[in-house]
Amino acid sequence: MKQQISIFDTTLRDGTQSEGISLSAEDKIKIARKLDALGVHYIEGGNPGSNSKDIEFFNRVKTLQLNAKITAFGSTRRKNSSVEQDTSLLRIVESGVPAATLVGKAWDFHVHTALQTTLEENLAMIGESIAFLKRHDMEAIYDAEHFFDGYKHNPEYALAALRSAQDAGADWIVLCDTNGGTLPGEIHDIVGAVRRELSAPIGIHTHNDCELAVANTLAAVGAGATQVQGTINGYGERCGNANLCSILPNLQIKMNYPCVTDDQLAQLTNTARYVSEIANVHMPTGQPFVGNAAFAHKGGIHVSAIMKDAKTYEHIVPELVGNKQRILVSELAGQSNIISKAQQLGLDINANNDKTRSIMNKIKELEHQGYQFEGADASLELLLREAFGETKSIFKLESFKMLVERNADQLVSEAIVKINVDGQTVYTAAEGNGPVNALDNALRKALVQFYPGIMDIHLSDYKVRVIDENDATAAKVRVLIESTDFDNTWSTVGVSSNIIEASWEALVDSIRYALLHIAKVEQTAEGQRRQLGLINH
Amino acid sequence: MKQQISIFDTTLRDGTQSEGISLSAEDKIKIARKLDALGVHYIEGGNPGSNSKDIEFFNRVKTLQLNAKITAFGSTRRKNSSVEQDTSLLRIVESGVPAATLVGKAWDFHVHTALQTTLEENLAMIGESIAFLKRHDMEAIYDAEHFFDGYKHNPEYALAALRSAQDAGADWIVLCDTNGGTLPGEIHDIVGAVRRELSAPIGIHTHNDCELAVANTLAAVGAGATQVQGTINGYGERCGNANLCSILPNLQIKMNYPCVTDDQLAQLTNTARYVSEIANVHMPTGQPFVGNAAFAHKGGIHVSAIMKDAKTYEHIVPELVGNKQRILVSELAGQSNIISKAQQLGLDINANNDKTRSIMNKIKELEHQGYQFEGADASLELLLREAFGETKSIFKLESFKMLVERNADQLVSEAIVKINVDGQTVYTAAEGNGPVNALDNALRKALVQFYPGIMDIHLSDYKVRVIDENDATAAKVRVLIESTDFDNTWSTVGVSSNIIEASWEALVDSIRYALLHIAKVEQTAEGQRRQLGLINH
Repeated sequence: MKQQISIFDTTLRDGTQSEGISLSAEDKIKIARKLDALGVHYIEGGNPGSNSKDIEFFNRVKTLQLNAKITAFGSTRRKNSSVEQDTSLLRIVESGVPAATLVGKAWDFHVHTALQTTLEENLAMIGESIAFLKRHDMEAIYDAEHFFDGYKHNPEYALAALRSAQDAGADWIVLCDTNGGTLPGEIHDIVGAVRRELSAPIGIHTHNDCELAVANTLAAVGAGATQVQGTINGYGERCGNANLCSILPNLQIKMNYPCVTDDQLAQLTNTARYVSEIANVHMPTGQPFVGNAAFAHKGGIHVSAIMKDAKTYEHIVPELVGNKQRILVSELAGQSNIISKAQQLGLDINANNDKTRSIMNKIKELEHQGYQFEGADASLELLLREAFGETKSIFKLESFKMLVERNADQLVSEAIVKINVDGQTVYTAAEGNGPVNALDNALRKALVQFYPGIMDIHLSDYKVRVIDENDATAAKVRVLIESTDFDNTWSTVGVSSNIIEASWEALVDSIRYALLHIAKVEQTAEGQRRQLGLINH
Repeated sequence: MKQQISIFDTTLRDGTQSEGISLSAEDKIKIARKLDALGVHYIEGGNPGSNSKDIEFFNRVKTLQLNAKITAFGSTRRKNSSVEQDTSLLRIVESGVPAATLVGKAWDFHVHTALQTTLEENLAMIGESIAFLKRHDMEAIYDAEHFFDGYKHNPEYALAALRSAQDAGADWIVLCDTNGGTLPGEIHDIVGAVRRELSAPIGIHTHNDCELAVANTLAAVGAGATQVQGTINGYGERCGNANLCSILPNLQIKMNYPCVTDDQLAQLTNTARYVSEIANVHMPTGQPFVGNAAFAHKGGIHVSAIMKDAKTYEHIVPELVGNKQRILVSELAGQSNIISKAQQLGLDINANNDKTRSIMNKIKELEHQGYQFEGADASLELLLREAFGETKSIFKLESFKMLVERNADQLVSEAIVKINVDGQTVYTAAEGNGPVNALDNALRKALVQFYPGIMDIHLSDYKVRVIDENDATAAKVRVLIESTDFDNTWSTVGVSSNIIEASWEALVDSIRYALLHIAKVEQTAEGQRRQLGLINH
């Protein structure tokens, strides 16, 4: 059995340095709960001296009774002053958290150039600041900024900085690759060297500027680091921090280091998607382990092998991280993809019957017209279920009108829909920020009295592609729409020479799919919203 | 000096396995030119036996005189048959490319489970297929599928597969981590072991399922691999292939392996963004090396240190990969690009005058709103000429209305425009296949009496990108329009939360640009049409 690894999450602190991410205190509370359920050991909440949001967060999070230790972040004391007069350090102590991380210089170049003080004063700043936390009975974590660059330029001084923290009683010494420029081999060697010199437990904090943050973290653990710092989905400044969503399964499943329980690890995909929703950042479909395409199979040969044994093309069982296998369909793929997709849905299909042939012909015909189902699994599911009589008509469209008007004073988008639901005609209109938004608003307004759950769904991505590029504005376009509730994401497609008609088609499929799964949607999404106080969202 | 590394790009083959990426033959040609300019040594174009798009690509690419070797992709021959009767292998030879990659099994489990043949027959399939290419004087590359999994389960058989290819004359043996599940330490050890057993040059092909594809590639090169396979932006099935945009700078700048020239490496950012535009895939702002935020600095301490010395928070000089530093508080993005563009247009601009600063501020403000001029050179030219008083107003918009109506019988798109040209009001309407086509038709109908030449222009591409991906249908969209006469192609941009308004803006820019160059347009396009008998088109 290998040594337990402590997981230190800094989504709420370093993650918010991401361009475009801004979290309210309420957002931070929601994410903290979710991180706690995932089983991380430390949750770095922010800098209690820096702004009112962080102060509010620290006050509220105390009441939650989380298992994870909440930690505050700050710097070593200012140069040429004393810890007792350092308001930032005082705020950390006052915040009442059990642990704090203090970042301090370890690279002589930075001491001279950025800090503009002496090497000795920097050592004193580290030691006195750590000792200050220890005097207040806090767990003290020293983040050695630019440690690897510092070690490469002046190993003696870099190690002296660490010793200064260790001698003052630091509980953890965290080695930071702040610029993200170090390679895995260097990380391995330098962490090994530090381990030989120090007795305090070592942590690792990497950035992804070379697309190596995960590898660097694993290399550090391999060399003896026992704390791992990172963020959910790798959020962070520039190219981001080390991505815990990849580090956790690599450490636990591949390298056999215990981190969290197996049940907690199975929350990984859900956690990643939840945090991306709260942070308002679109999750790349191909994100390792937790992305919607992480276990999606497309090529015909791959799929026929997958049907024989999933191990042929899957490096882990997707359910270990709470994800699932998906079979995509494409022009390049044979009918085996479609058959396995249908089998996943529990439909009685096989290669040698008439129904299968007729479905195949229908799909081939649609692909010829420009539909593409590999990016629209919900539309494909509807098509297959329809062929088996498993869908019911939700409404009949009588007409829609979409009007965009621009004059000197204003720009207005307005949609009018007339639909028939179970013999009842609904005729309504709505405005929107643009034509698709107006159509979406009008259609959901018309349906909400019959299906209240559809107000909990929203569109999360919208893509348009001209299929035949000649005479572009008169050519066919394909619209792909991605929709989401808190737990699920599904994609639908529409094709037309008219972008509004294509969008409408994809919108309608999205709603049909949602309603097909409405029981589940109602149950899970609403439950989650109730818990989060979001039911009126 | 370390050994030269051969860069093998498979964006056009393995990259198109990405969910949602579908490239036309024309797209592939454009990307091939760009890859050639980047200096990659091999461009894998596709499978010449598989579909008409790839066949068209191979026919057209031959005429381009590229420096890179174009390679075809296929499998080893079918089991229990002969190479001379294998249509897929025959197509590869007939395609006329100088090199081909054949994928074949190296994992005994796959031979039994997926291929369902004997271990001996698989070895014969590999050897005979490679020998067939060599008999036709082609460079032969053997892709050993699942090599690392195979080696871990049965090293003798995995090596026997490689020897079968080597003995048949394979020019390269490429070790594939097909599932993307192998860790860097394992890659390093196994590549080292293979190097000791084989004399043929070794390549590496990794996937990103563990977020380790770049690290695994670097580990393989460190152990002696001299060919690197990957894709631009890491496109590929599931979580993608190894990302050449990170591998190239890591190998060349950090590890000192020569790959391409320094000038070619400085094309990296531009290449990455160009390919993402063609593929219509949003590039993450934090993508390492080439992303818009890769060298963006936000925190106040970071920025003040950066101003003292960029090395404090930058691991490489961004210009080495054609990227640039961005200071998010006081951004001066791309000033030198814009100055050189203006100088190209003969405008009197330099870094130190007020007009330049005011143009920069305008462009910065527009980029902040979501405009992007990299893909819209005509809009940028209009902006610059406008600042120098070199454009005249063509018309003044009073209003437009755009109506799409769908009922049981029909779908109608109609646009009404009211514009003022030199004091004269023109009020007209037109239908179209879709809303943008209707607007285009109505606007040109209103203008044709003043500028007859504009009927010779048509839109050749239309792209829509959601800029802020949350609440997709209510978010801002950027529309890029490409227009053409017979001789010239130009691109314009529009941004709005309303797709119709954004399209209108790009349409108007396209027409303004055309009219600015109308003399030339009249002369060349009409002449060519007359010659081609297309004057009434």
